[in-house]
Amino acid sequence: MGLVVQKYGGSSVRDAERVMNVANRIVETYDQGNNVVVVVSAQGDTTDDLIEKAQEINPKASKREMDMLLSSGEQISVALLAMAIEKLGRPVVSLTGWQVGVQTDTKYSAARIHKVKTERLHDELDKKRIVIVAGFQGINKYDDITTLGRGGSDTSAVALAAALGADVCEIYTDVDGVYTADPRFVKNAFKLDDISYDEMLELASLGANVLHNRSVEMAKKYHVKLAVKSSLNKVEGTYVKEVDQVEKMLVRGVTRDNDCARIALCGVEDTPGKAFQVFSLLSKNGISVDLIIQSIGNGVTKDISFTVTEGDLDHALQLIEEKKDLIKAEKVTWSKDVSKVSIVGAGMVNNAGVATTMFEALYDAHININMIATSEIKISVLVDQKDAERAVVAIHDKFML
Amino acid sequence: MGLVVQKYGGSSVRDAERVMNVANRIVETYDQGNNVVVVVSAQGDTTDDLIEKAQEINPKASKREMDMLLSSGEQISVALLAMAIEKLGRPVVSLTGWQVGVQTDTKYSAARIHKVKTERLHDELDKKRIVIVAGFQGINKYDDITTLGRGGSDTSAVALAAALGADVCEIYTDVDGVYTADPRFVKNAFKLDDISYDEMLELASLGANVLHNRSVEMAKKYHVKLAVKSSLNKVEGTYVKEVDQVEKMLVRGVTRDNDCARIALCGVEDTPGKAFQVFSLLSKNGISVDLIIQSIGNGVTKDISFTVTEGDLDHALQLIEEKKDLIKAEKVTWSKDVSKVSIVGAGMVNNAGVATTMFEALYDAHININMIATSEIKISVLVDQKDAERAVVAIHDKFML
Repeated sequence: MGLVVQKYGGSSVRDAERVMNVANRIVETYDQGNNVVVVVSAQGDTTDDLIEKAQEINPKASKREMDMLLSSGEQISVALLAMAIEKLGRPVVSLTGWQVGVQTDTKYSAARIHKVKTERLHDELDKKRIVIVAGFQGINKYDDITTLGRGGSDTSAVALAAALGADVCEIYTDVDGVYTADPRFVKNAFKLDDISYDEMLELASLGANVLHNRSVEMAKKYHVKLAVKSSLNKVEGTYVKEVDQVEKMLVRGVTRDNDCARIALCGVEDTPGKAFQVFSLLSKNGISVDLIIQSIGNGVTKDISFTVTEGDLDHALQLIEEKKDLIKAEKVTWSKDVSKVSIVGAGMVNNAGVATTMFEALYDAHININMIATSEIKISVLVDQKDAERAVVAIHDKFML
Repeated sequence: MGLVVQKYGGSSVRDAERVMNVANRIVETYDQGNNVVVVVSAQGDTTDDLIEKAQEINPKASKREMDMLLSSGEQISVALLAMAIEKLGRPVVSLTGWQVGVQTDTKYSAARIHKVKTERLHDELDKKRIVIVAGFQGINKYDDITTLGRGGSDTSAVALAAALGADVCEIYTDVDGVYTADPRFVKNAFKLDDISYDEMLELASLGANVLHNRSVEMAKKYHVKLAVKSSLNKVEGTYVKEVDQVEKMLVRGVTRDNDCARIALCGVEDTPGKAFQVFSLLSKNGISVDLIIQSIGNGVTKDISFTVTEGDLDHALQLIEEKKDLIKAEKVTWSKDVSKVSIVGAGMVNNAGVATTMFEALYDAHININMIATSEIKISVLVDQKDAERAVVAIHDKFML
């Protein structure tokens, strides 16, 4: 008996059969005596289809009109899911973002939630209705529809859970939970029963593709207990919660991220502020820099290497070319054939041996390390892309077996 | 210079090309210095596709959820049309029914408009924006989305025009205007320059398929000048307006309606109130009766014939069968192979010869008349369906040539 918020992604409701399947799960939770609020994304390819329609007419359409367009996708899926639950004979109501009162700022297509009103939700829950809410969307102070950007429905679900003080926010996806590594190529990978918010944040940003970062950040901030579960089976998922409730394990996950490119500026003048010039130039232009290595200068020149996402590579190179008189590098090289391999674990902060063990695993596998970066709960290395999967397996088995 | 409300139907915006075409027309009106408010229906088959999705999941879905579902169709088309206008470089904003404040009663799927708020509309017009409004939809006192039923976008357009005091409400469709008869089979049919509200009402309900009745009723009530025009060419359309502004013509149009079925109750007991029993039974069950003939009774029995729509035929026959002990007809017969052919004209009220001329035309064409009904501005006859087109041509040419 409690208040459960569930979130189902687009692939979980992509056709009539999947919608009925989801409806059955929701009804099961409801029949156990819970109040149930469900957040749904747009069905399968709906959003892509709508984007295509817009592109055909105006590739430079305003974000305000894109939000008007795209938010219809979730409106369709909430109505269909409500109909499926009606078929199962349970009381239900579907609500759009504006009907709930998901109030956001005015940044169309990437809006941030300011506040979630709860009057209508409580009203419907008091009537013992299952409430189906359109994810990904909100309303701004002009009464215009906004969307929350990538991973928006996860964020909607966590925001509703926080506003309602839900006992748990269950995120249903097409994987069983959070794994120690990608089970598609790491045969010894296993599912974690729980994980801390911070570890999840690192895993999410490192390409684990399970939960969007913003939703984890929000869950951490408002102490919302998250559960990552599969919508396709009944396997117990992974709980994301406060760190002190989490099982102590040195390393919780090993990830690989192929979406990175390395840029090296060789023979840069060895004067103070040179690195600052380069990185402020990039950040002013909206390019995030990830791993950074700067060689110890010889008093005359030094080398600066860093990684960006592949999508930002061309833009970054262009900016560097434009400012070559300022940067004065002898040579600029770059490569897309690199991957970032990382280990994450809240336990490693107190254990100096973790890095050593990681490097040993790579050495044993004859894998060369290009760059290294560490934080309190993460160590990342840049390796050649061809070595990346082997690197993950080697590191995973070294720590986990 | 004025305030123009335009309405475009689903086929006018069915694909990117048509959307751009409509955008160009709107911009033309805007560039002439007008304030422009545009009402749009869902694109082409969108509504049918959404209904199919719903049917697949739950053929008995609640009307509340159907309205939630279907209203997304217009949300898509307003956004796309706004994007097309953005491409043409004019200021524009799209609005849903709830954003405008189209307030309706709570009868989902067939809601009536109570009131249209104008604050947001005036606000946007003051900013010199073209305003694109989702037709067919409104919002009720629970903040739930309602739809207006068949022809709903026409009604939306007229309601907005009335609320804003627009100079004209232009209804764009795929015909050039209102014709004296269906030009597909009456080669001498010609387009009317103008027509009165009452004439248009009779033509609409007689199957002219140009404007929905509710929108004409509303236009009459609020003195909204309507123009029916083609979205595909620049032909001057037909104006629907006050009767005294309309050209005097005895007969304004000849129509045919195949969607009717005749039921005959033969040998019914000739006592007072018998017809009342039959028709109150049908009306209580939501069946509208159109033409009625009752033979003069012989003191013992009489015959009662009437027409209903084809869709209501089975239900009507079933009701009559259930109450056969009450109705006590000797025989019940029915036929779907009938058509109603009608002439409409505000001038005929003062001219007794009109009916005679009509019957003469049918006599000359050797067409048998089954039933006759007259009103102040209309005369309808029931003929065999196979004769219907010939009847229309004969009557049309008799009056119009």
